[in-house]
Amino acid sequence: MNHLLKEIRDTPLLWLLVCVPGVLVAEQLRPEAHTLLFVLSVLAIVPLAALLSRSTESVAAKTGDAVGGLLNATLGNLTELVIAITALRAGQYMLVKASIAGAIVTNTLFMLGASFLLGGLVHHVQEYNRVGARLQSGLLFLATVALLIPSAISQADAGPGAEFTRTLSVGLAVLLIVAYGLGMLFSLKTHRELFVSAESGHAEEAPWPMSLAVATLVGVTLLVALVSEIFVESVQKAAETFGMTPAFVGFVVVALVGGAAEMTSAFSGARKNRLDLSVGIALGSSSQIALFVAPVLVLLSYAIGPTPMDLQFWPGAVVMILIAAVTASMVTISGRSAWFVGALLLMVYLVFAMTLYMLPPRVT
Amino acid sequence: MNHLLKEIRDTPLLWLLVCVPGVLVAEQLRPEAHTLLFVLSVLAIVPLAALLSRSTESVAAKTGDAVGGLLNATLGNLTELVIAITALRAGQYMLVKASIAGAIVTNTLFMLGASFLLGGLVHHVQEYNRVGARLQSGLLFLATVALLIPSAISQADAGPGAEFTRTLSVGLAVLLIVAYGLGMLFSLKTHRELFVSAESGHAEEAPWPMSLAVATLVGVTLLVALVSEIFVESVQKAAETFGMTPAFVGFVVVALVGGAAEMTSAFSGARKNRLDLSVGIALGSSSQIALFVAPVLVLLSYAIGPTPMDLQFWPGAVVMILIAAVTASMVTISGRSAWFVGALLLMVYLVFAMTLYMLPPRVT
Amino acid sequence: MNHLLKEIRDTPLLWLLVCVPGVLVAEQLRPEAHTLLFVLSVLAIVPLAALLSRSTESVAAKTGDAVGGLLNATLGNLTELVIAITALRAGQYMLVKASIAGAIVTNTLFMLGASFLLGGLVHHVQEYNRVGARLQSGLLFLATVALLIPSAISQADAGPGAEFTRTLSVGLAVLLIVAYGLGMLFSLKTHRELFVSAESGHAEEAPWPMSLAVATLVGVTLLVALVSEIFVESVQKAAETFGMTPAFVGFVVVALVGGAAEMTSAFSGARKNRLDLSVGIALGSSSQIALFVAPVLVLLSYAIGPTPMDLQFWPGAVVMILIAAVTASMVTISGRSAWFVGALLLMVYLVFAMTLYMLPPRVT
Repeated sequence: MNHLLKEIRDTPLLWLLVCVPGVLVAEQLRPEAHTLLFVLSVLAIVPLAALLSRSTESVAAKTGDAVGGLLNATLGNLTELVIAITALRAGQYMLVKASIAGAIVTNTLFMLGASFLLGGLVHHVQEYNRVGARLQSGLLFLATVALLIPSAISQADAGPGAEFTRTLSVGLAVLLIVAYGLGMLFSLKTHRELFVSAESGHAEEAPWPMSLAVATLVGVTLLVALVSEIFVESVQKAAETFGMTPAFVGFVVVALVGGAAEMTSAFSGARKNRLDLSVGIALGSSSQIALFVAPVLVLLSYAIGPTPMDLQFWPGAVVMILIAAVTASMVTISGRSAWFVGALLLMVYLVFAMTLYMLPPRVT
Repeated sequence: MNHLLKEIRDTPLLWLLVCVPGVLVAEQLRPEAHTLLFVLSVLAIVPLAALLSRSTESVAAKTGDAVGGLLNATLGNLTELVIAITALRAGQYMLVKASIAGAIVTNTLFMLGASFLLGGLVHHVQEYNRVGARLQSGLLFLATVALLIPSAISQADAGPGAEFTRTLSVGLAVLLIVAYGLGMLFSLKTHRELFVSAESGHAEEAPWPMSLAVATLVGVTLLVALVSEIFVESVQKAAETFGMTPAFVGFVVVALVGGAAEMTSAFSGARKNRLDLSVGIALGSSSQIALFVAPVLVLLSYAIGPTPMDLQFWPGAVVMILIAAVTASMVTISGRSAWFVGALLLMVYLVFAMTLYMLPPRVT
Repeated sequence: MNHLLKEIRDTPLLWLLVCVPGVLVAEQLRPEAHTLLFVLSVLAIVPLAALLSRSTESVAAKTGDAVGGLLNATLGNLTELVIAITALRAGQYMLVKASIAGAIVTNTLFMLGASFLLGGLVHHVQEYNRVGARLQSGLLFLATVALLIPSAISQADAGPGAEFTRTLSVGLAVLLIVAYGLGMLFSLKTHRELFVSAESGHAEEAPWPMSLAVATLVGVTLLVALVSEIFVESVQKAAETFGMTPAFVGFVVVALVGGAAEMTSAFSGARKNRLDLSVGIALGSSSQIALFVAPVLVLLSYAIGPTPMDLQFWPGAVVMILIAAVTASMVTISGRSAWFVGALLLMVYLVFAMTLYMLPPRVT
C-alpha cells in the first residue's frame, strides 16, 4: 500500500484522483448537471488510466516475459475497452464506433506525430527499431482492409442487407482476433529477437508487489467502469453545450481521454530519445484497438448489447482509418525521424479534427 | 515420348490425367450431371496445367535466354487464357471478369502469402532479390490504375455511356500490352543483370527434347480447351449445388484451378529456400494476367465474342485488386520474409474470400 | 541589359519571345480569332516562363542561401500562379481547379517520368538523394489528404452544403500554407545538411546583376499576366476547334504550357546525370502548387473572385492526384532509377490523359 501512496505523492497527474469521489458524489447530488459531470469524469478517468497501465506493467513484470508481454498487450487498452463496453450496454453504437475509429486515428497520427515532434525538438535525428513498427502497421493495414469491406460493399450495392453485414462482421471479428494472436506469437515467441530494443524499454520503474498490483488492477477497473457510465451519459449533452458535433466528441475527445496515460509515457520516451518505446506504444495501441478491442466489442454485443453491432463504419471514418494506416506504413519505412515527420502527421490529424469539428451535426 | 511417360510416372499430380478422358466421356454420356462434370473437369485441368508449364519451360530452355524468357513469360498463364477465351466465346463476361480479378488477387495474396508462410515454417528468415518483385508490383500497380479508371469514371458520373467505356477500354488495353512489352525488354534485355537470381531458378530440371516439348504444348493446349468448355458450362450450375455465389466461383474457384500448377512450383521453391522463384512466379503471374491476359481478352472480344467486352469491373473487384497491388508493393520493400508476413497476406485473402462466399447472389 | 540580350541570343527557346508582341497585336486586330490567339499565347508564355525562372534564380543567388531558397521556392511557380489568378478573376473556377489538379499530376508523373526516362536512356542506373524526394512526396501526400476531404465528405453524405465546404476550404488552405512554411523551415534551416546535393544543383549558370534580375522579374510577370488573359479567354473556344474536352485543356494543355520552362531544366539535368536537380524541380513544383498556389488561390478568391472558391474537386481529379502522390512515394523509396521507372510513370500519365481526352464534354 505504501508503494501506491508513494506513487501518488510523486506523480502530479495522479493528484487528479480526487476527482473520482468528486464525480461519484456530484452524480448523486446533481444528476442533471451534464457539463460538470462531463468535465469531472474526464478528469477522473485520466489518472485512473495511468494507474491501470502502471499496475498492468507490474503484473506483467512479475509473470515472466511471454505471459507478461501477453498481459501487457491485452490489458493495455483496458480503459478504452471499459468505456466502449459501457457505451455498448447503453446501445450507443454510434459512440462506440466513433471512439474505435477515433482511437485508431488518434494513436496513429496524434500520439505518433507528437512523439516524433517532441523528440525531434530535443534530438536532431532519431532512430528506432523499425521491425516492430512494420509489424504493427502491417496488422493495422489488415484491420483497415477488414473494416473497409463491409462499408465498401454496403455502399456500392445498396442492398445486401443488415443480416449479411452482421454475419460478415462476426466472421471478420474472428479473423482479426486470430491475426492479433498470430502477431503476438510472432513478436513474443518465434521471432522475439527482432523486437529486442522495443521490449527493453518497459522495465524502467521498480514494479509493485504482485498482490498490490492485482488489487489495484481489479479496483481501478471497477472505478473506471463506474466513472465511464457517468462519462457516456453526460458526453453527448455536454458536447452540445460546448458546440461540438457528436462525431468530434467520439473521434477526438473520447480518444484523447482514453489514451491520456499512454500518451504521457510515449511523449516522455520520445524526449529521452527512447523512440522505440513511443513508436511501440502508439502503433501497438492502434493495432490492438483495431484487432482486439473492436472485434471483441462486436462479439460482446451479442451477449450484452440491445441488438448485435456490426463493423460497418460511416465512409468518412473508413477513409480516415485508411489514410492513418497508409501514413503509418510510409512513415515507418526508414526507421528514422526528425521533427518535421511529426509535424506532418499532426497536420494530417488536424485536417481530420477540423473537418469533424466543422461538420454540421446531421451529417454523421 | 519416354520423357513424358517417365515424368508422369514420377509425379503423382500427373496421375490425375486419367480424369481427362473421364470428363470427355462423362460429357457424352451424362451432359446434365453438372456437379460430376464440374468436379471431373477441375481434376482434369490441374495436371494439364502442370504439363503445359513443364513443356513451356522446356521449349524456353532450348531457345536461348531472351526468346526463352519471352516464351515463358507469354505462355505462363496459358491455362487461364484458354479458360477465359472459352468463357468469352460463351458470352459469359461476368465470369471472364471475375476470373481475371480473382487470378490477380489469388496470385498476389494467396500464392505469395502461402509461399512466405510455408517457407517461413521451415526457415527462420528468408531473403529474396527484391528488384524483380518491385518490377512486377510496379507493373501491377499500373494495371490497377488502368482498371480503376473506367470503373471510377462510370461510377462517379453515371453517364459517359457504354460507347465511351468501350473505346477507353481498347485504348487502355493497348497501353497495358505496351507496358508489358517494355517490362520484358527491361528485365530480359537492358537490365537483366539486376534480375539474375530470380532467373537462375528455372533451369533446375532436365529439359525435354524440342520436338516432344512442342508436341506436348500443342496437344495439351487443345485438351485444356476441350475440358475448359465443359468446365465453363458446368461451373455455374455446380456452384449453385454447392451453395456458392457466382462471384465466389469466378474469383476463388477458377483462380485456384487455373493456378494450381504454378502454385505447386511456388510452394516447393519456398520450402527449398529459393524464394526468388516463388516471388517471381506469384507476382509474375499476377502482372501477366493484368497486363497481358486481360487486355488480350478485351481485344479478342471484338473478334470472337458476341459483343465487345470492356475493362469495367464491379467496384468491389476494383477495391480488392487495388488492395492486393498496394499490399504487394508494401510487402516487397524489404526483400525479407518470415512466416508472419505470409500469414498476414493469407488473412487479407481470407477476408476477401469470406466476403464473396457470404455475399447474397443478387449483389454481384 | 547585355546579359539579357546575350541570354536570348544563346537560347533558341527564347527566340519565341517574338510571339509576345505578336499575340498582343493579334488580340487588337482580330479578337475573334480564338485558335490563332490560343496558339500564339501558348508560344508566348513558354519563353516568358523561362525568363521568369531564370531571373528568380538570379535574385535568389544574390540574397544568400536561406532567403534565396525561400524566393526560389515561392516564385518557382509564378507562371502557373499568374495564369490561375487570371482565370480566377474571370470566374472560371472549373479551369482554375483543372489546372491546379493538372499541374500536380503533370509535374509528378510526366515531368518526373520523362526525367527518369531521358536520364535512363543515357545512364544505366541513376542515383539521387532521396531525402528531398521523400520530403516533397510527404508534403504532397498531406495536400492530397486535405484536397480529398471536402470531396469525400460532400460525396458521401450529399448535403453538408456549400457553406460548410467553403469554411472548411479556408481552414484547410491555412493548414496547407503552414505546412508549406514548416517544410521550408525544415529543408532550408534546421535540417539543411540532409538536402545538400539537391541544393547544389541550382548555382550552375552565372547569375545576372541584381537590378537586371529584379527588373526582368517585374516586367516579365506583367507580360505573363497580359498574355495569360488572352490565353484564358481563347483556350475554351480553341479547345472546341481542336476537339479537346475542357477537362483535357485544363489538366494537360495548361499544365504543360505553365511548366514548360521547368521541364527544360529538369530534362537537361537528368541527361547530365544530375537527377537530384530533376527530382527536386518535379516534386518541388508539385508540392508547391498543392501547398502554396492552391490555398493562396482559395484565399485570394475572397478578394478578387466573383464568389469564394472552395477546394472541392471532381472525384476523378481527386483519384488522379491521389494516385500521383502514392506513385511518387513508392517510386522515391529506393533513391535509384532506370529508364523503366520513367516509362511506368509516363504510362500512368498517359492513362489519365487518354481518359480525359476521350471523356464526353458533359461529364466534367
